[in-house]
Amino acid sequence: MSVNAEIITIGDEILYGQTLDTNSHWISGELDQLGIRVIRKTTSPDKEDEILIAFEEAEKRAEVILITGGLGPTNDDLTKPTLAKYFQVELEMNEAALEEISERYERAGWELNELNRGQAIQPMGSTKITNELGTAPGIWLERNETIFISMPGVPFEMKAMMEKEILPKLKRRFVKGKIHHKIIRTGGIPESRLAEKLQDWEKNLPSHIKLAYLPTLAQVKLRLTATGSDQEQLEKDVDEQIELCMPLIEKYVYAIGNIELEERVGQLLRENNKTIACAESCTGGYLSHLITSVPGSSDYFQGSYVAYSYDIKEKALQVDPEVLKTQGAVSEEVVIQMAKNIREVFGTSIGVSLSGIAGPGGATKDKPVGTVWIAYSDGEKTEARKFVFAKDRKLNIQLSAMVALNIIRSNLVKK
Amino acid sequence: MSVNAEIITIGDEILYGQTLDTNSHWISGELDQLGIRVIRKTTSPDKEDEILIAFEEAEKRAEVILITGGLGPTNDDLTKPTLAKYFQVELEMNEAALEEISERYERAGWELNELNRGQAIQPMGSTKITNELGTAPGIWLERNETIFISMPGVPFEMKAMMEKEILPKLKRRFVKGKIHHKIIRTGGIPESRLAEKLQDWEKNLPSHIKLAYLPTLAQVKLRLTATGSDQEQLEKDVDEQIELCMPLIEKYVYAIGNIELEERVGQLLRENNKTIACAESCTGGYLSHLITSVPGSSDYFQGSYVAYSYDIKEKALQVDPEVLKTQGAVSEEVVIQMAKNIREVFGTSIGVSLSGIAGPGGATKDKPVGTVWIAYSDGEKTEARKFVFAKDRKLNIQLSAMVALNIIRSNLVKK
Repeated sequence: MSVNAEIITIGDEILYGQTLDTNSHWISGELDQLGIRVIRKTTSPDKEDEILIAFEEAEKRAEVILITGGLGPTNDDLTKPTLAKYFQVELEMNEAALEEISERYERAGWELNELNRGQAIQPMGSTKITNELGTAPGIWLERNETIFISMPGVPFEMKAMMEKEILPKLKRRFVKGKIHHKIIRTGGIPESRLAEKLQDWEKNLPSHIKLAYLPTLAQVKLRLTATGSDQEQLEKDVDEQIELCMPLIEKYVYAIGNIELEERVGQLLRENNKTIACAESCTGGYLSHLITSVPGSSDYFQGSYVAYSYDIKEKALQVDPEVLKTQGAVSEEVVIQMAKNIREVFGTSIGVSLSGIAGPGGATKDKPVGTVWIAYSDGEKTEARKFVFAKDRKLNIQLSAMVALNIIRSNLVKK
Repeated sequence: MSVNAEIITIGDEILYGQTLDTNSHWISGELDQLGIRVIRKTTSPDKEDEILIAFEEAEKRAEVILITGGLGPTNDDLTKPTLAKYFQVELEMNEAALEEISERYERAGWELNELNRGQAIQPMGSTKITNELGTAPGIWLERNETIFISMPGVPFEMKAMMEKEILPKLKRRFVKGKIHHKIIRTGGIPESRLAEKLQDWEKNLPSHIKLAYLPTLAQVKLRLTATGSDQEQLEKDVDEQIELCMPLIEKYVYAIGNIELEERVGQLLRENNKTIACAESCTGGYLSHLITSVPGSSDYFQGSYVAYSYDIKEKALQVDPEVLKTQGAVSEEVVIQMAKNIREVFGTSIGVSLSGIAGPGGATKDKPVGTVWIAYSDGEKTEARKFVFAKDRKLNIQLSAMVALNIIRSNLVKK
C-alpha cells in the first residue's frame, strides 16, 4: 500500500504573489524518491481558521502532512498555536529544543531574549526537530494514523531538517517494498537530443524500472527508479540498464549518482593531481564561486582574477592592449591570452577564462547579448570556443560557468 | 467586501516535483494588485475524484476559482469533463470556440483533425476564453455566486489569456475597495531583534494596516498592507506609519520598495561616484558575483582577486608573509592588509576583503567553522570585524557576502 502525503505551505506572502513557493516543489521530489505520493499541495493564509481547515482536510486524506512556514518568533507566525489548538493540547516549553537554541545563541555570542526562548515552546506531545541552520526548531506530532511535521519556511533551514532528520525517519517508517534510484548526470546536450539517442533503449526498459528526465541548467539528469522486493536484484537490474545505455551517451555523462558537476571537476583535478586558476570577466566570480563551493577545494583551486575593466585585463592579466583595442574584450584572442596568463601568474596546471556580454547592455552588431568566449589552457594546449547563450543576464552568467565546468571536465577525462 | 479567489493547479508533474509551479505565483501577484484576495492555492493530481474534491472545497470559500492545467487534447487532460460532471451538464461543441480554432489552423496552414475540433467542446453554459498563443481555449463558467475559470497550464498561453480577457473582466466586476503594499528592507539585524524594536509601534498600527515579517538570508523584509476605499489615503497612511517606525530601525533599513541589497549598494556607489574592488578568500568569488549580478555594475566594479592560497595572498595581494605565518590567514591583520592592498592594486575608492573558515574543514581551537573576518577600506579609514556565522559551508559563504554588502552600504550611507 502506498503512503499519501500532503504539503501545506503557510504564508500570505505566497498567496499575494510576493514569494515563489519552491519548498513544496523540493519536498515533492524528495518524497517521490521514497515512493511516498504527494496527493495534494495547499497554500493557506496566515489565518487561524484557514489553517485549521487545511489541517482538517489534509488529515482526511494523508498519513503524512508536511507544513512549512509560520514558525518564526513574531506575531504573524501562527503555525504553532494553531497546531496546538487543532490537537486540543497546551503549548509547553520543550526542554530539548530550548537547550539547542541556547547553545546556538551562545555560539554566536548573542543574548537570548524572551522571543528567542519562545521558539522552544511547542504543542504538548511534540518531538522537536533540530534546526541546525536557524533558530526555530521543527515539530513532529502524531495522532491516530497521521503525522504532522512543521518546519520553518526558510528554504535552506527546511532542507537541512528534511535531509538530516525527517526523510530518514519517514523512510524507516514507511518504505516497505524496496526502491532503488540511480541518477545519470549529463552536460552539454539538450533534453530532446538525449531523448532521441535513448528512445530505443527506453522502449525496452523492463516494466519495474522507470525513467525520468530532469532537466536543469545546462544539464539533464536521468533518474532510473526500480521497485520490487529484493534490493540487491534491483541494484543489479538498474546497473545492467545503465551499462546498456552508456555507450549511447557516454561523452555527455559526467557522473552517476549524487554528484554536482563542480564536485566531479574537483574529483578529477584531485585524481589527476592538477591545480586550477580562473580569469573571469562576464561571470564576475561565479565560476570561482561554484568551484569553491565544494569542501576541500583549496587543495586544487589556487585563486582567480575577476577582471571587469580593460585596465585590469591589461595590468594583472597582461593581455596585449593592442589586441584588446582591435578585437575587443569579447574575442578569441583575448580569452586565449587570459587563460594562458592566469595559468602562469598562479603557477597552476590549468587556466580557464571567460569573457562575454551578459547583458542587458554591451551588445554590438556582431556580438549580441549572450555571446561568450571560453578558453581552456594546460601545459599541452590552449583552445577557445564561442557560445551564444540567452537574453537574460543571470542566465548567461550561470550557463557560462556551467559550460566552463563541463569543458574542464571533458579535458580532464580525455587524459 | 473583499472578493476571495482560489487557485487550483492540476497536474501530477507538479506533485511529483518535476515541474515547479510558477503559474499560481504569477496569478496571485496579478490578483493582489486588483485587491482580490487569494485565500487558498491547491495542487491536485490528474484524477477525476481528487479534482472534484478540490472544486467542491474551493466553491465553499471563493467567488473566483482559477484553474490551470489539464486542458490539452490528450487522455490525461481531465479538467473539461470533470468540470462538466461537477456542474452536472453535458459537453457540447462551442461554436464560437470552434470558429476561432478553425481560423487559427487555417492561418497556420494546418489541417484540422478530430482532436483539434475536440478542443472546442466545452461544458454547456460556458463562455470560451480566447487563447491567442495556443489551441486550447479557456472556459468561463458560473453558477450562483461563483465563477470557475479554466486555463491551459502553459505559462505564456495562460498569461496572455489573463491579461487580455480575464483580469479586465474580473476588474470590471469586482474591484471596489483598494489595497496598497509597501516593503521596508533591512539587513544586519535578526527578525527577533527587529520585532523587539518594533513591538510598540506594531501594537499601535491602525486596524486597516497589517504588518508581515519576511525573513531571507541575513535580511528581513517588513511588508505593510493597507486596505480601504481611497487609494491616495492608503498611500498616505502607509507612508505615515513608515515615518513613525523609521527612527527605530533606520540604521538597518537599506531600501523601501523592490530593491535587492546588491542593487542598493550599486546605487550608492554610483551616487557617491565611488569604485570598488574585492579581495576574497573564504567566499571564493561569491561577493563579486553578487555585485556583478546587477546590470551596469561595470560602471563601479573594477574587479577582484580570489586568493585561496597563501602564495597568492603574498604575491598578488602583498600580504606580509610574517603576518600570515604568525596570525594565520583568518585574522584581523591579514584582512586589513588585503583590503588596503586590493584598493591600491585596482586603484579603486573602496576595497573590501574577507577571510574565514567556511568549513567543514580548517577549524582550529580558537577559530571554529564559521569564523570570518571582513575588512572595509577607503581613503579615510580601514576597519575589520569578526563574525561567527554557521556550521554550513554554503551558508557561511552566503552570509559572509551579504554581511559584507551591508558593511559597504552602511559606510556609503554615512558619508
